[in-house]
Amino acid sequence: MSDRTLTATLVQHADQGGVDANLQYIEQQVRAAAANGTRLVLLQELHNGAYFCQTEDTEAFDLAEAIPGPSTDRLGRLAAETGCVIVASLFERRAAGLYHNTAVVLDADGRLAGKYRKMHIPDDPGFYEKFYFTPGDLGFTPVDTAVGRLGVLVCWDQWYPEAARLMALAGAELLLYPTAIGWDPHDDAAEKDRQLDAWTTVQRGHAVANGLPVLACNRVGHEASPRPGDAGIDFWGHSFIAGPQGEFLARAGHEPELLSADIDLARSESVRRIWPFLRDRRIDGYAGITRRFLDD
Amino acid sequence: MSDRTLTATLVQHADQGGVDANLQYIEQQVRAAAANGTRLVLLQELHNGAYFCQTEDTEAFDLAEAIPGPSTDRLGRLAAETGCVIVASLFERRAAGLYHNTAVVLDADGRLAGKYRKMHIPDDPGFYEKFYFTPGDLGFTPVDTAVGRLGVLVCWDQWYPEAARLMALAGAELLLYPTAIGWDPHDDAAEKDRQLDAWTTVQRGHAVANGLPVLACNRVGHEASPRPGDAGIDFWGHSFIAGPQGEFLARAGHEPELLSADIDLARSESVRRIWPFLRDRRIDGYAGITRRFLDD
Repeated sequence: MSDRTLTATLVQHADQGGVDANLQYIEQQVRAAAANGTRLVLLQELHNGAYFCQTEDTEAFDLAEAIPGPSTDRLGRLAAETGCVIVASLFERRAAGLYHNTAVVLDADGRLAGKYRKMHIPDDPGFYEKFYFTPGDLGFTPVDTAVGRLGVLVCWDQWYPEAARLMALAGAELLLYPTAIGWDPHDDAAEKDRQLDAWTTVQRGHAVANGLPVLACNRVGHEASPRPGDAGIDFWGHSFIAGPQGEFLARAGHEPELLSADIDLARSESVRRIWPFLRDRRIDGYAGITRRFLDD
Repeated sequence: MSDRTLTATLVQHADQGGVDANLQYIEQQVRAAAANGTRLVLLQELHNGAYFCQTEDTEAFDLAEAIPGPSTDRLGRLAAETGCVIVASLFERRAAGLYHNTAVVLDADGRLAGKYRKMHIPDDPGFYEKFYFTPGDLGFTPVDTAVGRLGVLVCWDQWYPEAARLMALAGAELLLYPTAIGWDPHDDAAEKDRQLDAWTTVQRGHAVANGLPVLACNRVGHEASPRPGDAGIDFWGHSFIAGPQGEFLARAGHEPELLSADIDLARSESVRRIWPFLRDRRIDGYAGITRRFLDD
């Protein structure tokens, strides 16, 4: 470990039943992590409540809040109290009829250092996010903090190499993904294994391709669907912290867990020296990346 | 398995000591694979000889040959005889002083269906490829064959998500990587494990991100360096075939091996229906991908 070692912690948990209960739980966990030396905390996606996108319900927009607003105020106080940088995930109300899935970064002094609006929005049975979240309009811009430049992305973004690469090109030193992903209880065990492994692998691949640590914090617990007959979602946990060769530094299971690892930020440069991928990118040949499909 | 099942085989081997010896070995292996139902064969990078890039030696350019030329003629006859599509890897002499690291595709009727000139060229101690290989100028264009549209890339390309994505956007149905990668014998076991795992993970990540099978064929064996004092390279083998969720369909070890798997080409479409990543790409936000670094 170099003198650029950063202790980071993920708070993987089940919904506690309400905003105040979830924030109380988070406060308790962050204080415990800080007491053990953590300086960077990553929370799971939409940690203030249940995952409300299992159905399309206009009343769910009442859950959205302003940024800055009550949650950033409360999390900012927690950041200042503990001296941790906190990456949180909120349902943002920007205007009537205009909502985003937004990650916020509270710096170690409690200041709102920046935010990222989820760029890639999924829509699958049980994950009706296109109904709720306007696609982000802030691009792929990292946030500078006391612990370094953070490439904060959100959940569905984690399947997109473009998002990770753009954050790396903008100088991100870590990639962080608040997440809410789980199994359809109807799928068989082999399919569940493939999905969890694919989710882990593609993100570890971003670590490798960019020579950067990757942190992914996912929720756990079964959440029933409000739609009769739907099976609900088993959120699969398995949050992890990987180093710049994609190696696991820490990995959670399928239960609530406070997951910590020491990340040596100096390793990214040594890894990029033996694997200088950024040197050899064929930027003269990449224009097609901005096309939908190359069929004409 | 659907009725779009394709049996594919990788020929992972050690250098046999000369062009004719290597091609004889390959012919024997391809005939054995074809007898077992293989219709697609992937050979390792620069399979006609030792990996000559451990030093910079102008005489090594004598190893280069025209395309089409004697190797494509011989491999074309093998393809026609066995009915296999063969993806091979040659040192191409295009003109005096102009050489490429080129993959060639022999169709099942023996015709030269297309070629791909390695776009990303590495240069590391022991892998002095920038001395030998002019960067490719054919872009990321798949090759149509009797078994489907093949996204053929070469070795160092495998670390670049852009290359895999561009092949997928151009309609590739499989991604194929002839490879020559190995360990520096001076590295410790933990570093060797991380490197092998990173190499495997980033390519499985391309399978996941693009919903496509990935085939990587690497060489094995220790090859001494011509430079006194250099340790040479232990080519690590571990060729593999992964499905469109990155799941292993077959995986070799560290010895010569004829590695086969049945690939269900219909699974790509079913996987892309549950994970419709192509639908949600933010092409309006990807322009920075064509930049070297976003520091201005």
